Amino acid sequence: MFRKEAVFQMHFRKNPFGGGFTVASGLESLVQLIESFHFTEDDLKYLSGITGTDGKSIFTGEFLKHLRDLKFSCDVDAIPEGTVVFPNEPLVRITGPIIECQLLETALLNFLNFETLIATKAARLCLAANGQLVIEFGLRRAQGPDGGVTASRAAFVGGCAGTSNVLAGKIYGIPVRGTHAHSWVMAADSEMEAFEKYAEALPNNCVFLVDTYDTLDGVRHAIEVGRSLREKGHKLIGIRLDSGDLAYLSIEARKLLDAAGFEDASILASNDLDENIITSLKSQGARIDVWGVGTRLVTAYDQPALGGVYKLSAIRDAGSTWKHKLKLSEQTIKISTPGIQQVRRFEKNGEYIGDVIYDVSVPQPKNLVAVDPLDFTRRKNMPADANSEELLVPVFRKGKRVYDLPNVFEIQKRTQQQLSRFHPGIKRFMNPHQYPVGLEASLHELKTKLIFEAREGIRKID
Amino acid sequence: MFRKEAVFQMHFRKNPFGGGFTVASGLESLVQLIESFHFTEDDLKYLSGITGTDGKSIFTGEFLKHLRDLKFSCDVDAIPEGTVVFPNEPLVRITGPIIECQLLETALLNFLNFETLIATKAARLCLAANGQLVIEFGLRRAQGPDGGVTASRAAFVGGCAGTSNVLAGKIYGIPVRGTHAHSWVMAADSEMEAFEKYAEALPNNCVFLVDTYDTLDGVRHAIEVGRSLREKGHKLIGIRLDSGDLAYLSIEARKLLDAAGFEDASILASNDLDENIITSLKSQGARIDVWGVGTRLVTAYDQPALGGVYKLSAIRDAGSTWKHKLKLSEQTIKISTPGIQQVRRFEKNGEYIGDVIYDVSVPQPKNLVAVDPLDFTRRKNMPADANSEELLVPVFRKGKRVYDLPNVFEIQKRTQQQLSRFHPGIKRFMNPHQYPVGLEASLHELKTKLIFEAREGIRKID
Repeated sequence: MFRKEAVFQMHFRKNPFGGGFTVASGLESLVQLIESFHFTEDDLKYLSGITGTDGKSIFTGEFLKHLRDLKFSCDVDAIPEGTVVFPNEPLVRITGPIIECQLLETALLNFLNFETLIATKAARLCLAANGQLVIEFGLRRAQGPDGGVTASRAAFVGGCAGTSNVLAGKIYGIPVRGTHAHSWVMAADSEMEAFEKYAEALPNNCVFLVDTYDTLDGVRHAIEVGRSLREKGHKLIGIRLDSGDLAYLSIEARKLLDAAGFEDASILASNDLDENIITSLKSQGARIDVWGVGTRLVTAYDQPALGGVYKLSAIRDAGSTWKHKLKLSEQTIKISTPGIQQVRRFEKNGEYIGDVIYDVSVPQPKNLVAVDPLDFTRRKNMPADANSEELLVPVFRKGKRVYDLPNVFEIQKRTQQQLSRFHPGIKRFMNPHQYPVGLEASLHELKTKLIFEAREGIRKID
Repeated sequence: MFRKEAVFQMHFRKNPFGGGFTVASGLESLVQLIESFHFTEDDLKYLSGITGTDGKSIFTGEFLKHLRDLKFSCDVDAIPEGTVVFPNEPLVRITGPIIECQLLETALLNFLNFETLIATKAARLCLAANGQLVIEFGLRRAQGPDGGVTASRAAFVGGCAGTSNVLAGKIYGIPVRGTHAHSWVMAADSEMEAFEKYAEALPNNCVFLVDTYDTLDGVRHAIEVGRSLREKGHKLIGIRLDSGDLAYLSIEARKLLDAAGFEDASILASNDLDENIITSLKSQGARIDVWGVGTRLVTAYDQPALGGVYKLSAIRDAGSTWKHKLKLSEQTIKISTPGIQQVRRFEKNGEYIGDVIYDVSVPQPKNLVAVDPLDFTRRKNMPADANSEELLVPVFRKGKRVYDLPNVFEIQKRTQQQLSRFHPGIKRFMNPHQYPVGLEASLHELKTKLIFEAREGIRKID
């Protein structure tokens, strides 16, 4: 088995959150894993101590030696982070010795599933905010410290303007944003004293949290301190509302701020926000400028897992031709697609019009035909005069990286550019438009043939 | 402000998953953080580069020097991991210089919220399994790599028998369990060949995943290979079902296994299980012996965040007497409790009968009276003849650890012992019994007085 070569691909089956699109993220984590991939002596010692039914090690010395000597030698192709992607599309393809492909599975799925999920949630929040800033505030509720740091990066990929996670700021260069705590106000003898002391200590960073006792009194105190900041040549950046009726309070706070000449002081709101609450607050005329989103962003509260899978799609003895493979299931959506897949995205007049998944090991016709993976009677001829691009790019060749990792600012820009080129219908939250993604007709036929063969095989064994 | 001393406490407001209890976890992570707590030169350099509205650093050199010299000097009291806890109870209390208390907040909440959530979910799954084994299978869907490793430990705290996460096995000594992949079967020329080769390679670790093509054929193939394992002095440990109708398939698989003399081969089931599906499968007579639970355990899918908070409850100038503090809110449940809190748990005839939260800085009467925090007319006199114990134990004194961390096996045992001593009603999934937890009458009165004072203060300011 060691001598076999395989192709594995990662895909997901449904856009998360009932939405019409997904934002790919997690490739940088995967690249870092691959570049440091090895078994330490300590790892091997631990593995050798795992015993089976007879009390002896379940792994042979030969196998452990193989792990010790293992150097990553696969080819990796992947869709860059910040690309808008859809169900059934391979986000990553790994080609090489089967054991290497297999050893990557769990970590690869962990990275891609989580980061893609959070980048998508962040993109939805930014769509709801409609040009206003969304700041990620979730570390205290994230699933573990790394769950928090990874989420902060993925939230930035999806479009967030900053994070309250200072460690993520340090690691990734993401802007850090935040306010003082309620406890700062509680520790002082009065709210006024708390704001005054804060302004004294950090005159160039004044966003006051006004809801410790009574929110509108808090706004009045912020204004008073804002006046003395102004006199000293500083600036009241804004206030933060963290509880209560955010629509009402933001409208009233805006009136108070404007009446005092603080038209450019921002109102930041937080408190279990998500894209639906943001949409609702906007429709109520809330005067909120900046949205702080924590728990519901970093845990992807309404759907905390993407459910992406990683499937063997071709195998061969080293040097011979590929044998295509699929996994059957009684649920059609769970039958995997065989082949060495690439995604071609078509564009017309600046708008993306459809994606075709095809097999790079098979010659393709000039005019691709996309077959809906869940209904083979729905087909679309891709126009011959449309522009197109291949989504998967080479990342590793024989274990060597051939891809320059973009920084997180470039990735965020890519997300925005990508989203701007899709029809608004796919970005709706309710009943989004389904962007056309199909298997190329020849790949569809191969898949159908393999399903029949596999089911035939079962009957023969009976 | 630097010279002030404070008391902060962490509590949560509602048992997760609509349940009647919560299992505390996360203290070991907190202890490790505190013991390594410091700012590196690199951290300070990063912090000094954060600028405000005037383009200058928001932090003074004096403040950064203070951070550089900071050594943790607080007292920490906490409820040990594996203890069953309830809303409003302080899980951790930190006493010391206010800046140290405050700097711990985010990390403390991150650890305690997530690990407590997962330990509780695991305990619920184990209750549903009713003595059968539950194995945690979630790493590929966990929220980041650390989200996965932390979750594996917390799942073990809650009662899981093992994990598929080999790294968690190595770090914590948790038993590792798992089966081969679907791809192992797909990579071979037939399912029979795949099982035979696996049995050749790992004869002492044979659990066959039987659903790659047709599940009951898979069981027949496992039996055939099981026979030849038996002939060679080895053992068929069992089979794993990962899709389809688990009730029907497990019953049919059991018949096939028993008819072939494999009465002691186990049937392991997985596929988006949770405590409700396990309960339902059992009520349908499913013949499943071991439950593999992934996504819905490690992400706490139906409630992916606990929502615990960390509140200032007392403050003083060093050496003077404590001034009690609370945070107001328009939502009663969000008003924090003042004081330096301890929890006394009462027990009669081996069963826990109620908890009282009281203030250790105030002399207590002989007979404690528990006042329901959400309805002050509901009161309970704690019986004078009941046994009782204090739940919070000293963990750090003046920054030095005074507590021996139990290992994860001892913690798991504590969880089981604790759960066994509560009325079964609190362990129900539907409409659980509400275990009595109250504020001691004097603490209730203090809280009421402070609320009136704070609201009075507001009126005066108006």
